[in-house]
Amino acid sequence: MKKKAKSNMIWGGRFSDAPDQVMKSINASIDYDKRLYKQDILASRVHVEMLAKKKIICKQSAIKILDGLKKILIEIEDGRFKFQIDLEDIHMNIEARLHELIGEDAGFLHTARSRNDQVATDFRLWTRDSIDELIERIENLMKAFVTKAEQHSSTIMPGFTHLQVAQPITFGHHLLAYLEMFSRDIERFNSAKLRLNECPLGAAALAGTSFPIDRKVTSKRLGFKRPMANSIDAVSDRDFCLDFLSASAICMTHLSRFAEELVVWTSGQFNFVSLSDNFSTGSSIMPQKRNPDAAELIRGKVGRVNGSLLSLLTVLKGLPLAYSKDLQEDKECIFDTFDTLSVCLIAMTGMVLDIKPNEDILRNAAKMGFSTATDLADWLVKNLDIPFRESHKITGEIVKLAEEQECELIDLDLGLLKTIETKITADIFSVMTVEASVVSRDSFGGTAPLQVQLQIEKWKERLL
Amino acid sequence: MKKKAKSNMIWGGRFSDAPDQVMKSINASIDYDKRLYKQDILASRVHVEMLAKKKIICKQSAIKILDGLKKILIEIEDGRFKFQIDLEDIHMNIEARLHELIGEDAGFLHTARSRNDQVATDFRLWTRDSIDELIERIENLMKAFVTKAEQHSSTIMPGFTHLQVAQPITFGHHLLAYLEMFSRDIERFNSAKLRLNECPLGAAALAGTSFPIDRKVTSKRLGFKRPMANSIDAVSDRDFCLDFLSASAICMTHLSRFAEELVVWTSGQFNFVSLSDNFSTGSSIMPQKRNPDAAELIRGKVGRVNGSLLSLLTVLKGLPLAYSKDLQEDKECIFDTFDTLSVCLIAMTGMVLDIKPNEDILRNAAKMGFSTATDLADWLVKNLDIPFRESHKITGEIVKLAEEQECELIDLDLGLLKTIETKITADIFSVMTVEASVVSRDSFGGTAPLQVQLQIEKWKERLL
Amino acid sequence: MKKKAKSNMIWGGRFSDAPDQVMKSINASIDYDKRLYKQDILASRVHVEMLAKKKIICKQSAIKILDGLKKILIEIEDGRFKFQIDLEDIHMNIEARLHELIGEDAGFLHTARSRNDQVATDFRLWTRDSIDELIERIENLMKAFVTKAEQHSSTIMPGFTHLQVAQPITFGHHLLAYLEMFSRDIERFNSAKLRLNECPLGAAALAGTSFPIDRKVTSKRLGFKRPMANSIDAVSDRDFCLDFLSASAICMTHLSRFAEELVVWTSGQFNFVSLSDNFSTGSSIMPQKRNPDAAELIRGKVGRVNGSLLSLLTVLKGLPLAYSKDLQEDKECIFDTFDTLSVCLIAMTGMVLDIKPNEDILRNAAKMGFSTATDLADWLVKNLDIPFRESHKITGEIVKLAEEQECELIDLDLGLLKTIETKITADIFSVMTVEASVVSRDSFGGTAPLQVQLQIEKWKERLL
Amino acid sequence: MKKKAKSNMIWGGRFSDAPDQVMKSINASIDYDKRLYKQDILASRVHVEMLAKKKIICKQSAIKILDGLKKILIEIEDGRFKFQIDLEDIHMNIEARLHELIGEDAGFLHTARSRNDQVATDFRLWTRDSIDELIERIENLMKAFVTKAEQHSSTIMPGFTHLQVAQPITFGHHLLAYLEMFSRDIERFNSAKLRLNECPLGAAALAGTSFPIDRKVTSKRLGFKRPMANSIDAVSDRDFCLDFLSASAICMTHLSRFAEELVVWTSGQFNFVSLSDNFSTGSSIMPQKRNPDAAELIRGKVGRVNGSLLSLLTVLKGLPLAYSKDLQEDKECIFDTFDTLSVCLIAMTGMVLDIKPNEDILRNAAKMGFSTATDLADWLVKNLDIPFRESHKITGEIVKLAEEQECELIDLDLGLLKTIETKITADIFSVMTVEASVVSRDSFGGTAPLQVQLQIEKWKERLL
Repeated sequence: MKKKAKSNMIWGGRFSDAPDQVMKSINASIDYDKRLYKQDILASRVHVEMLAKKKIICKQSAIKILDGLKKILIEIEDGRFKFQIDLEDIHMNIEARLHELIGEDAGFLHTARSRNDQVATDFRLWTRDSIDELIERIENLMKAFVTKAEQHSSTIMPGFTHLQVAQPITFGHHLLAYLEMFSRDIERFNSAKLRLNECPLGAAALAGTSFPIDRKVTSKRLGFKRPMANSIDAVSDRDFCLDFLSASAICMTHLSRFAEELVVWTSGQFNFVSLSDNFSTGSSIMPQKRNPDAAELIRGKVGRVNGSLLSLLTVLKGLPLAYSKDLQEDKECIFDTFDTLSVCLIAMTGMVLDIKPNEDILRNAAKMGFSTATDLADWLVKNLDIPFRESHKITGEIVKLAEEQECELIDLDLGLLKTIETKITADIFSVMTVEASVVSRDSFGGTAPLQVQLQIEKWKERLL
Repeated sequence: MKKKAKSNMIWGGRFSDAPDQVMKSINASIDYDKRLYKQDILASRVHVEMLAKKKIICKQSAIKILDGLKKILIEIEDGRFKFQIDLEDIHMNIEARLHELIGEDAGFLHTARSRNDQVATDFRLWTRDSIDELIERIENLMKAFVTKAEQHSSTIMPGFTHLQVAQPITFGHHLLAYLEMFSRDIERFNSAKLRLNECPLGAAALAGTSFPIDRKVTSKRLGFKRPMANSIDAVSDRDFCLDFLSASAICMTHLSRFAEELVVWTSGQFNFVSLSDNFSTGSSIMPQKRNPDAAELIRGKVGRVNGSLLSLLTVLKGLPLAYSKDLQEDKECIFDTFDTLSVCLIAMTGMVLDIKPNEDILRNAAKMGFSTATDLADWLVKNLDIPFRESHKITGEIVKLAEEQECELIDLDLGLLKTIETKITADIFSVMTVEASVVSRDSFGGTAPLQVQLQIEKWKERLL
Repeated sequence: MKKKAKSNMIWGGRFSDAPDQVMKSINASIDYDKRLYKQDILASRVHVEMLAKKKIICKQSAIKILDGLKKILIEIEDGRFKFQIDLEDIHMNIEARLHELIGEDAGFLHTARSRNDQVATDFRLWTRDSIDELIERIENLMKAFVTKAEQHSSTIMPGFTHLQVAQPITFGHHLLAYLEMFSRDIERFNSAKLRLNECPLGAAALAGTSFPIDRKVTSKRLGFKRPMANSIDAVSDRDFCLDFLSASAICMTHLSRFAEELVVWTSGQFNFVSLSDNFSTGSSIMPQKRNPDAAELIRGKVGRVNGSLLSLLTVLKGLPLAYSKDLQEDKECIFDTFDTLSVCLIAMTGMVLDIKPNEDILRNAAKMGFSTATDLADWLVKNLDIPFRESHKITGEIVKLAEEQECELIDLDLGLLKTIETKITADIFSVMTVEASVVSRDSFGGTAPLQVQLQIEKWKERLL
Repeated sequence: MKKKAKSNMIWGGRFSDAPDQVMKSINASIDYDKRLYKQDILASRVHVEMLAKKKIICKQSAIKILDGLKKILIEIEDGRFKFQIDLEDIHMNIEARLHELIGEDAGFLHTARSRNDQVATDFRLWTRDSIDELIERIENLMKAFVTKAEQHSSTIMPGFTHLQVAQPITFGHHLLAYLEMFSRDIERFNSAKLRLNECPLGAAALAGTSFPIDRKVTSKRLGFKRPMANSIDAVSDRDFCLDFLSASAICMTHLSRFAEELVVWTSGQFNFVSLSDNFSTGSSIMPQKRNPDAAELIRGKVGRVNGSLLSLLTVLKGLPLAYSKDLQEDKECIFDTFDTLSVCLIAMTGMVLDIKPNEDILRNAAKMGFSTATDLADWLVKNLDIPFRESHKITGEIVKLAEEQECELIDLDLGLLKTIETKITADIFSVMTVEASVVSRDSFGGTAPLQVQLQIEKWKERLL
């Protein structure tokens, strides 16, 4: 195996042998941590300005460093920057380039700082930005849901339990359930952000520094709420990653539930909704199909996000303080989760706007399976003063009758009903239509169109 | 296979065949959901009172039901209640007993309610109580940490990175890192509780109810912030379980990190701390050992909590709305997690109070590995105006010298130091003791005893 | 907290303080490891016989011990044995009882053995028995599948991709796919058993023993292939648990796939199969429903098995050799997995025998979605020598035509077909029926009834 | 959003709208599945040769296709091939390029095949190759272990339980424990390969094909044991991926255990082994450190492999047959796992060869903690005919005495020993040296150097 010349190696000095190729390939993180370039440069700028202000380094050096960092930012964004694997990570790639650009003064940048607090700071900044971006995307998805719900606040469809038709509901009401979920997702990301939003910079390797730095200034300039209160925690904590991953896993779980519904609903047997060609694909051998690929992919991708959460939990299990190299495994799972959740949110937003409910099919399906049996049972309780459990049994017998007669509940003969319970009157038929059923459920949060519209107004106010 | 008489079966009525034994054994949950008895009775009481107040059921029936429920509560707490597997779950066990006690009026209890919203309500109440209990236990653990940290705010020990001695720190400072973690755990549980604290009661099966119930009253009486705004979400949501499990997994991860440190620290090679016989055990073949069993068990038990989190994420993946029986898998993982986290928190609290740092060993260990090299490098920057990266290289050469001479940095000859960097003066030796090193790191959050004491004051104010 | 008298404590001797209640509650395993009683007694018997044969203990003591162990076995199986939590685990409960029964001679039992190799031996024996039991249950399930497949080897149903009707298949063919999966499950459990089947007994605490034991004899008498070749591995290895858990997780995944199909197929929209009352349940508020509870529970329970696998992987991550107390976390996840998989296999066996395919509905569904488009495309390739990709495009246009005409492919006018491809002849209609389609796919492993019957014969030979 | 011209889209024909950019970005797999290029071309070659032999396509077309495929292989390996995201995956990239190279005849390639069986075949071939490669790497690692074990078959070190010194063992014996683990890993991969090694080609979309293909020929030519017996299973099964991932997770778990030991052993407190500069790195602020980065990274990387296993288990949970798009999530987790396990095996091989045990330290550590107490207890049993449990108690008292006297067991006065048990003779001192202890444990698999050498011979025969 070839060895690289020592001079390229950041640990320089004492080592008589450079690590070999394998070490480099297992060790280097530049392939993925270059995504932190913007945050790294920003944190370095703020750090240098503070060092100069506190006279820890001289003003001239600071100006040169700030100037050099600005040039590097442009080089990277223009795609002209040469990332080198020998320099291991984004931090050393930038510092080495700074040295090329401004010479010895570059050596002052790392004063009163260590890679441990530097990487923790950069990564918190990146994660914070990502949370903001994800929240915006969740809000967009919510807007799509509320738009569609408003169009269908009184479109009748079957409500399911056990994938069996249970009771009639409205399409809008069903969609609103997801608004509740995504709204909790936003709260979850927001509280993750609150806990994340403390600044590790100044913790140095693990113990703090003897330079007279001002951590409050750098913390504030970087938009953090406050500097982290314990330097060991500052470099060893990855709770903010776990918070990010668990919030993402739960959000993906919500997406997977609607994705499953879309797959089921677009099946020929259900045919509850149609997806346009934009969100379905054909097949290489069966040209006529419209496969809900996007929904299936979203449903599948919850796997990788759950996997990432468990991956990092495993990494952190039993890890002694302060910094250990195992922590380098924090980044790829976060990056992949952000990319996955982002694309899934966008694709789902498109699909939600795209779906066209097939109203006749939905309405007919809502009538299936004696779906108004509960209404019948409730009528017995309300009008005949029969205890609920007793009315339940009577209803069971009536349903059995309807099954035998192969008719719907509403088509049963009043006389026949009376053979089961003599006190029943013709008024009972009024509660057995799907429309009456839906309208009657007007307790707070119920499926009655009026309740649905109230909720839609609330969401529109919050989101639009 | 034997079949049970229909009369015992809750779905009664229409079914010509009772499910067989296998079904019962896979289906029944009474073995574990009896833990919800208190919450179930409470929610039923509040529900019945509201029904009576809204005149949905008559006052006399309500009084009988309330009286019966009170008796059942006493029976259960006295251990006289006979739980029956044929009645499947805690809800039907209680209702069936109520029927035995008060007769037909028991049938009014389930008016305007379904098992779906009932179980969601009971389980939220249970989880909320559990969060309160866990927070109290975390606070007790934090008090133990702060007590021990105060005793050792200036006890010197080595700070580690990569399990290699890096820089001297104080024992108190190290312990304070855990206070930060546990404090985030409490915030995490609290925000889980906030999101949980909405009331599903009144959502009925999934669509709400046509009875003129008052959801705000039941919600308030049960201590919830508000009724859940969407009835489908109310019966199908298990976010509160995922929040509980992920908060628990993260907290267990913190415990596992300190547990690992205890295992390592109590090894003969480290011998950093001693555990009394209360928290270590002997061995059946090697009677002289003091094994840190409790620490190992805590370290291991993070596995089952992570497993429970994964388990429920898997259950919920791709589950269509509203209620599906899969959701019955929500309880055992939560119960086991609560029990596990509880006992681990208590055991860890005991251990933290029990550990006795071996101060001489810690102090000597802090001197190992040229642990004040950073101080030396910082001295060069501060006093000779050498860029940090340059001072790093010089320090590397000095360390090499000390290694060759087999002495500590502080024992190097000034003349020898000058062969590497002529500008070095005798003043450099002042920064090379572990005491000087620790005292010098007095930036906010640093390991200087003064900083540690400031943090301890903050924690004492918050906790004691 | 109360302390127990020292005399009850197994580590006796040197300890001045007994561990407190918390330690006992976190440490004791008797609540669950009593399931190992049979294996523990068996391994002790074999161990004692070997000790006597090798004259390590005297014959009289051995006879007394064997006699005592026999009595204990009966006591446990009769439910008369008093398990004591103070004695921590099944091993000490049995040994302590032996001491009560036969006095001082009981002290010879543990010669040349440690709890470390004892527990490893017991647990391997238990797991091996469990594998045998599970394999038998999988075979029963396979018999149910093959029985049902034989009844429906030519029952036509739609084959799905993306839950969209793709091509006609037979119901028997679909079921045979699961026979392949379960057959791999058996192979997987068998190879797990092969790797498990080595005997740890004699490894003692970790280093082997100085007593002249004969490990080959005990290994053979306990049905193991050979003694484990490294004593440290013998006490620290839990690969056999991981093998068991991963085989179980994969098997549960298969069950969850069929469970999902059952849930979808029993929905009112699909109505592909009916489940009798034996495997469906009603609802407390909607008496007419037949919910596929058992299928949903099986689908959900894959979560806990995956969770258990993750749990043990987490426990073992980074665990140094040889024995650490973390390993005590191995048992509950295995026990729970065995119980879960067992009941799911039994319930699924019942359901498979119970399902009644609705043949008319299946056949009609198979015609949906232009399901013979591939047959049409293949006809073009075979008869008109058109490249596959070209025939694909032509078929696409024909399908579009049928969509516009709102008719099935077979109902299209020949003249119209010729407007798209002039060379098409009336012969093309012969491949467009679902029967013709199914019969034509007679390559090995295809859905043609002849192929299906061949496979069924193979399975019957292997299973019945 | 821009739309691509229809002509580039593989589903061509009927679709009036091309999927938009989002769909493409969530749907396309070419970025990662291009790794299958070699397998895809190989399987296509074999397929085309069979088609020609069976006269399903004409010989001339076949020759052109084979020629084109050969050119494409060279283009890809030379880095000249332009992968296009619009063509979604490796299969369409290759077929589209074939069309450019040879024109219309390319359209014959996909005859009697579907992307479903094609991708399953390619991926099985890739995974099979990867298993072979991994087994070779595990064998190399085993060779490194056996080499090191042979050098240290009688080097004494402490054996640990609970990270407490338990009994003296040899360094070679400890290393041999890992040979057992890695040997099981190879068996596990081999049995995964056995189950994997069946050929899905010919299953077409899901139902088989009506073309008179010869599946046995293609299966044999591709090195498979036999064609898969059920076409639906052939396209929907991903057991081979789960087998690969669980074998990898278990192997990584083994690596993580030794990695943990290396981290602990290279700590200054243990200092049991030294790592050269090749496998340790410095620090940016503490130039003197030698951090065991590679060991830490390996320990951490078990997380991502466990995560991948759980990811795919989650994807497959509840997935109905036959092919669903969710299955596209199978590849990245396998690729990442292969890369991770490969680099970890190589790095660990280097480290094992590199480690230098510090023999004096190890030997002294072996004497710690009264590590020969068991030998003493065994002496009492053997020589004084005292039951084991009684000898255990006596030994406990002797250890207590040594603790009080602050001496080792061997330094206790005989007279003093006799105060505890009068029958003790001077002979007892002969078993109390670490050398005697190690030599005495010569039961099969024990730590006696003779036993260790026997095992080493066995491994050398098998591996070298």
